[in-house]
Amino acid sequence: MDKVSGHSLALRDLSRIRDTWRHLAGGAGKFGDEKLAVTLSQRQIDHLHRVLGDCVAEVGGEVTARQRAAQIGELYLSLDDAGKRDVLHLIVSEFGPQPGGVDAAIRAWQQASGAGPRREAEAALRRALASPRTRILTQFNALPDGVRFLVEMRADVLRLLSTHGELAILDAELEALLSSWFDVGFLTLHRLTWNSPAALLEKLIAYEAVHEIRSWADLRKRLDADRRCYAFFHPRMPDEPLIFVEVALTRAMAGNVQSLLDEAREPLDPARADTAIFYSISNTQKGLRGVSFGNFLIKRVVAALKQDYPRLKTFATLSPIPGFGRWLARRLEEEGDALLGSQERAALREVSGSGRLPALRSVLALEGWAQRADAAAALQAPLMRLCAHYLAHEQEQGWPLDPVARFHLGNGARIERLNWLADTAPKGMAQAAGMMVNYLYELEEIEANLEAYARRRAVATASGFRRLLRRPR
Amino acid sequence: MDKVSGHSLALRDLSRIRDTWRHLAGGAGKFGDEKLAVTLSQRQIDHLHRVLGDCVAEVGGEVTARQRAAQIGELYLSLDDAGKRDVLHLIVSEFGPQPGGVDAAIRAWQQASGAGPRREAEAALRRALASPRTRILTQFNALPDGVRFLVEMRADVLRLLSTHGELAILDAELEALLSSWFDVGFLTLHRLTWNSPAALLEKLIAYEAVHEIRSWADLRKRLDADRRCYAFFHPRMPDEPLIFVEVALTRAMAGNVQSLLDEAREPLDPARADTAIFYSISNTQKGLRGVSFGNFLIKRVVAALKQDYPRLKTFATLSPIPGFGRWLARRLEEEGDALLGSQERAALREVSGSGRLPALRSVLALEGWAQRADAAAALQAPLMRLCAHYLAHEQEQGWPLDPVARFHLGNGARIERLNWLADTAPKGMAQAAGMMVNYLYELEEIEANLEAYARRRAVATASGFRRLLRRPR
Amino acid sequence: MDKVSGHSLALRDLSRIRDTWRHLAGGAGKFGDEKLAVTLSQRQIDHLHRVLGDCVAEVGGEVTARQRAAQIGELYLSLDDAGKRDVLHLIVSEFGPQPGGVDAAIRAWQQASGAGPRREAEAALRRALASPRTRILTQFNALPDGVRFLVEMRADVLRLLSTHGELAILDAELEALLSSWFDVGFLTLHRLTWNSPAALLEKLIAYEAVHEIRSWADLRKRLDADRRCYAFFHPRMPDEPLIFVEVALTRAMAGNVQSLLDEAREPLDPARADTAIFYSISNTQKGLRGVSFGNFLIKRVVAALKQDYPRLKTFATLSPIPGFGRWLARRLEEEGDALLGSQERAALREVSGSGRLPALRSVLALEGWAQRADAAAALQAPLMRLCAHYLAHEQEQGWPLDPVARFHLGNGARIERLNWLADTAPKGMAQAAGMMVNYLYELEEIEANLEAYARRRAVATASGFRRLLRRPR
Amino acid sequence: MDKVSGHSLALRDLSRIRDTWRHLAGGAGKFGDEKLAVTLSQRQIDHLHRVLGDCVAEVGGEVTARQRAAQIGELYLSLDDAGKRDVLHLIVSEFGPQPGGVDAAIRAWQQASGAGPRREAEAALRRALASPRTRILTQFNALPDGVRFLVEMRADVLRLLSTHGELAILDAELEALLSSWFDVGFLTLHRLTWNSPAALLEKLIAYEAVHEIRSWADLRKRLDADRRCYAFFHPRMPDEPLIFVEVALTRAMAGNVQSLLDEAREPLDPARADTAIFYSISNTQKGLRGVSFGNFLIKRVVAALKQDYPRLKTFATLSPIPGFGRWLARRLEEEGDALLGSQERAALREVSGSGRLPALRSVLALEGWAQRADAAAALQAPLMRLCAHYLAHEQEQGWPLDPVARFHLGNGARIERLNWLADTAPKGMAQAAGMMVNYLYELEEIEANLEAYARRRAVATASGFRRLLRRPR
Repeated sequence: MDKVSGHSLALRDLSRIRDTWRHLAGGAGKFGDEKLAVTLSQRQIDHLHRVLGDCVAEVGGEVTARQRAAQIGELYLSLDDAGKRDVLHLIVSEFGPQPGGVDAAIRAWQQASGAGPRREAEAALRRALASPRTRILTQFNALPDGVRFLVEMRADVLRLLSTHGELAILDAELEALLSSWFDVGFLTLHRLTWNSPAALLEKLIAYEAVHEIRSWADLRKRLDADRRCYAFFHPRMPDEPLIFVEVALTRAMAGNVQSLLDEAREPLDPARADTAIFYSISNTQKGLRGVSFGNFLIKRVVAALKQDYPRLKTFATLSPIPGFGRWLARRLEEEGDALLGSQERAALREVSGSGRLPALRSVLALEGWAQRADAAAALQAPLMRLCAHYLAHEQEQGWPLDPVARFHLGNGARIERLNWLADTAPKGMAQAAGMMVNYLYELEEIEANLEAYARRRAVATASGFRRLLRRPR
Repeated sequence: MDKVSGHSLALRDLSRIRDTWRHLAGGAGKFGDEKLAVTLSQRQIDHLHRVLGDCVAEVGGEVTARQRAAQIGELYLSLDDAGKRDVLHLIVSEFGPQPGGVDAAIRAWQQASGAGPRREAEAALRRALASPRTRILTQFNALPDGVRFLVEMRADVLRLLSTHGELAILDAELEALLSSWFDVGFLTLHRLTWNSPAALLEKLIAYEAVHEIRSWADLRKRLDADRRCYAFFHPRMPDEPLIFVEVALTRAMAGNVQSLLDEAREPLDPARADTAIFYSISNTQKGLRGVSFGNFLIKRVVAALKQDYPRLKTFATLSPIPGFGRWLARRLEEEGDALLGSQERAALREVSGSGRLPALRSVLALEGWAQRADAAAALQAPLMRLCAHYLAHEQEQGWPLDPVARFHLGNGARIERLNWLADTAPKGMAQAAGMMVNYLYELEEIEANLEAYARRRAVATASGFRRLLRRPR
Repeated sequence: MDKVSGHSLALRDLSRIRDTWRHLAGGAGKFGDEKLAVTLSQRQIDHLHRVLGDCVAEVGGEVTARQRAAQIGELYLSLDDAGKRDVLHLIVSEFGPQPGGVDAAIRAWQQASGAGPRREAEAALRRALASPRTRILTQFNALPDGVRFLVEMRADVLRLLSTHGELAILDAELEALLSSWFDVGFLTLHRLTWNSPAALLEKLIAYEAVHEIRSWADLRKRLDADRRCYAFFHPRMPDEPLIFVEVALTRAMAGNVQSLLDEAREPLDPARADTAIFYSISNTQKGLRGVSFGNFLIKRVVAALKQDYPRLKTFATLSPIPGFGRWLARRLEEEGDALLGSQERAALREVSGSGRLPALRSVLALEGWAQRADAAAALQAPLMRLCAHYLAHEQEQGWPLDPVARFHLGNGARIERLNWLADTAPKGMAQAAGMMVNYLYELEEIEANLEAYARRRAVATASGFRRLLRRPR
Repeated sequence: MDKVSGHSLALRDLSRIRDTWRHLAGGAGKFGDEKLAVTLSQRQIDHLHRVLGDCVAEVGGEVTARQRAAQIGELYLSLDDAGKRDVLHLIVSEFGPQPGGVDAAIRAWQQASGAGPRREAEAALRRALASPRTRILTQFNALPDGVRFLVEMRADVLRLLSTHGELAILDAELEALLSSWFDVGFLTLHRLTWNSPAALLEKLIAYEAVHEIRSWADLRKRLDADRRCYAFFHPRMPDEPLIFVEVALTRAMAGNVQSLLDEAREPLDPARADTAIFYSISNTQKGLRGVSFGNFLIKRVVAALKQDYPRLKTFATLSPIPGFGRWLARRLEEEGDALLGSQERAALREVSGSGRLPALRSVLALEGWAQRADAAAALQAPLMRLCAHYLAHEQEQGWPLDPVARFHLGNGARIERLNWLADTAPKGMAQAAGMMVNYLYELEEIEANLEAYARRRAVATASGFRRLLRRPR
């Protein structure tokens, strides 16, 4: 069975697009691959209005309507932000549902009585609300790269939203459409290896959001025999990983990212590993905000790893604590050394000497404290205690304040262990004074954790971790 | 890049499904692969109600909710029609939108003034109408074969609809969901050949709806060097052609299906062909009713053929006329020989002799008239004239009465030629007295035809065809 | 990495071939796809002689030489047997090694003394014997389908050999070349299923040599859930199974081919099977005679099956006994009822009545004796005893007389069980009075069996089988 | 059709290899992945002798013999050069043909008279010379990576040959076997792109022999839109390019490698190119010495490029002149300024001043002369003249002295243009004073060039190039 190359549109149709665009762009004439640097003229917008109207009405049939939509898509791609905003604004303002139709459907709904008539009125009201905007968006799928086009259009909308609030309704319709099309059931999980296409691996370097990939040599180590990398893909965007996770197969739970990423490290025979450490998860597409699949990814990767390596017993993360630094600074501002127990304070004073500043603040301000044995020793107990408190108890609207904690707890994991001097790179020092945390995915517990978290917002923790929460000395 | 096998759910999760199902089905205990022959008990329905509620609320998180939905899907598959209807009824009646929420959103809509507030109210009303039913349907996508499951559930709904009208709203939601997921932009066009998997080719035999495929030898001839077969596929149903078209490459336009399907025929060198005849188009999935892609299929196949064989000049169908026989019978009933010109009548009388019955009816009633030279000669002029009239002028609510004519005219083709004794198989004789029609896809005319048809319902016809419409002699 | 289509030769080069061939074939002019029905003229043979000489000398370089060889290959393909014989004869007679060169190398060999000089002379003698014929054969590999071409040329040579003994040396060189190219290390094992290309499955129907495949429905049953089919392929002949084996997964060892091939049979869940029955092995390429891979096939299939179904314990064949019928007829001719014990003779007499013919012969001559309870009962003991004797003891030049026994015993199997009325189809009745035999591949014993067989020609047998060999009563 | 994974040997068989090897290596016991640092003991060699003998005799059947060979292969791989040499020596000295058999076949050859008997004797002599060594080598193909194993064994033999001359006969047998298995008809041409596996592209970096690839960024530029890279692969070594060529698509013939490899360069639209420059060809496998496919590669790449870009008119190389520097040094040594015309000498004297050294030598000795305008100007005429002479006229045993010239002229190209300051990297300056040469593949001329070169050793040159050969002024 041979796949016929090309997509919804024949090539010769696409070749007409540029001509149409010249026509649309009118006398301007100054384009090519560069973006138009001016907003569209009123004449151009009027023309566009008519063409979009023909799309919605499917004048000339569905196939023609899609060809027309593809032409508009090409036009859109050649515009700068001002021009894009004009097109988006036009779609928002002129292609909503007919208010008269909605009002009529509302009256029918209000008059309906009995289950059957109510349901009929419900269906009719939904039909009346069906938006020509969404029909236009769907027709863009006729572009050879239509799905990617919409993901990028959504990124445009999100970027323009702060200054052009009227785009909110288009954002909602785009999110609904993309949520349907990127339903996790359509995504395929692939393992990426050193045998994957270079063009694809290059994107990992670009997209890695947690621990920067420094070079091709670094990348290669992250795909070594005792490393795994998995990503979700969409069938219409086969070159684009949507989200990917990097995993280290280890003996015992890693507490330190430096040694995980050490390029000189000898790989472990993966058959001897007992633990899988998820040390980096990166979303790649801004345009898919709100379309979540991270939790599915982790669970499918756990299943795949267990199948390949039945000896794996522990599945855990080694995660950053992105909000602790900011939270601590605020607390220090407000409370100073009142955060400390007396022994803690005394120990820190010995390092900082007596000064006007609170002892904790002084020692944290020491250049390179992590490399100074006395400073690091005095800081360890209070910082770990405070960080444990932050992770387990600090909330915002009833949910954990730390975003990474929120993700993994909401996914059924428990807080397993806090690690001292686990990421001494500048970013790690700034975010959480070098600490990192392991979230543990205990397969037998996940559902119970999820229930307790969802119903009572109970945060699952290991007993070792809970000891950190004791009152300070 | 290795694709990781398995789909959204790990195998061990699916293995729990049967146990749950035993639990759900309660004491009954009498199942396996056979269908349950009883409706569900009230206790079972109550249980199912609770489980579906947990799905909608995503108790235990998204992953768990989908596992639960998959279990219900497995249960559904093991039920007979009565049991299925119970499940579908439960979804229809208990999982609509909250009426209170809709009413509140309606009030907000009615009070909003100004474009911005109107749009906010529009979005809010749409959110309030978003149906838990659709969420449940979406979660079924977690089944290993989730998309196919929904297509089959839609077929169930359509079958049950006549006796259970309350399912109409579920049908509408299923159609909306499937229209989004089966957007033509997601379909891939494949050519099927004798090198395609036998398991796939077997389905062509099963699905062919126009000219029955009699054997593997017949099938093989239909995939010969001068034949083409193309089908649309969905990435989640790779084994299932959704629609397929059979094409013959010929010299000059074929006017006769017997010779096209003659198994003893020698194949033509396709490079010498000047004409592509689309002689059979079959939709295969009842559950995709209303999700049309036939017009896209024809245009993409035309493009693919032109690319492979630049010498092809003519793209036409050889189509049945399924409604003519019925229409003619009704007219004969009402008007008898008044349908004929005087010469026509005289010619027929010579064959029928004088009798009480109208001459046309008498001759048509002759056993095997197609093989009798005098009968066939006398019938040709009046039947072709009446059939041409039927195709070009008979309408229903302003559109052509014949369904195949409606499809091709609405697709931009023109009626090119009516063919006498073109399909003398029993079905062809019954449908249209053995006549078939060529619809011509003249690439330069398609858009103009579409415009004229859409705006003025003008039926495009060739001049040779129009001559058949002259007053009878 | 994109594979570049086309093979060793650019298309435009191949298009010149026909012209060259017209030139070579001279005035004849009467060709196309049909074969030339005349031998080549002397002028044509002279021309061909020169062109082959240029191939060997690589005039114009290697690439040109291969293009030239490809042209000759095309010419060869268009000839009938007389023409082919002319070409083959030319290669045999004119393109052997230089006798002078061989003689010189022989002298050097005879004069060399000491290990080093002897080896140098050995290498030089081998070089002198290297045959231009083999160089020509190798150059045919430039044909798009060069490997298949040589396999078919070998089949031609084998067919012509009986009447043209001079081709024996070309046969030897072809066999050596094909043995090297078809080394089992280059073959890939594929499982064929109902999802394999129809064009490939069609070949199974054509090639099946043991139990005819009667229809596509029969084929489909042979690829059912509890059936397996494996074949070896060569990378340059991907559409051609070289040898294939059909396997049934069963509970307990099958003793009867009718039930194995019963189309109405319900498939067994393969996970419940404990036995794999190899019931048909077919070589497909006459041109690969002497290039054996059947023994590799069986062992690789056993390994593949064990990996997929660890519960399989027994690997055995259900094999025909092709030579028994002939052997028995000869023995009956010579010895008549002297082959029988007295009780056996008495029992047969009861069925045959008293007549002039020997009792055994009379009963065997009864039409449909297998369906007659008394006849079958009287025949069972003597026939099974004689057949067991035939299998275990009858030899030709020290090896088992039966060819199938020779194959499996030489492969390390043992004779496990003789089955009565195991193949009642006409061919089975004629070959071995309806009996079939199981050869057992007991993995722990194979090497010992092979040793004993190779060194002492010991035939491994099961004790149950050996009981059949006792003196008759 | 599913390919069954694994190769000739089942996994469990390979797991026995290590045990056998322990047995073979005897008490030593000190191995693992590291190489054995000692030669084999006599006891071990004796054991190996017996095992190899069993391989040749196929004791226990073919399958067993190959398993045994695979075990020896594994042993071989774990040895250092001394151990390898012991194994190779054993094969050379003990597994030649039977001298008695050869002598008998020689006698038969000498006594045969008439064509038929001569051919029989020829075949018999060839059989007698068939070497058990080659049978052993063939059996190594049972290793999962058997073909690669033999290529690497050949590289070992070539490396050891200078000190162990007795391996010459094994080298000859290996070359014959590899020439057969790597026949160009079995190789597939693939285009390598930035979408190829990173693990494969990494090998280009390692293997590039002409212009070093400095980084992944450099590599990426070499795979840019206006660059092409093609390689030959063998089906049993799919991860290993055997030879690859790098091509630049340009407008007009490139005369300078610096600009070709400039990483800041903007790519040209390949559809606008009229010229393809082959600027680097690298063989990668030492073990395939003497198995040539470079000429096939160039011609297949030309064909592939012409198909993709019909507008390409010129196919040429930009090649180094590796032998000119050495040749010039020798000539300068012998003849000094006598190589120059009087005007040339005067111009050089102006740069060098008067000194004892010849003027040409003095100026060439100036540090960085290529960057000094006066020095470069004075050198250009004499160096280009001498280099043209070197390329067109200097011979060794009747063939061009320069190895790259020999390759391309023997392939049908002509010398088109000599380029001044075309490669100013240190290697280019040392090899040919910065000059490079274009060889032109004029498709219409190739065969005539080949003929003239093969028969008369005529070197094809362009008229522009020939002007460089005029007597000096």
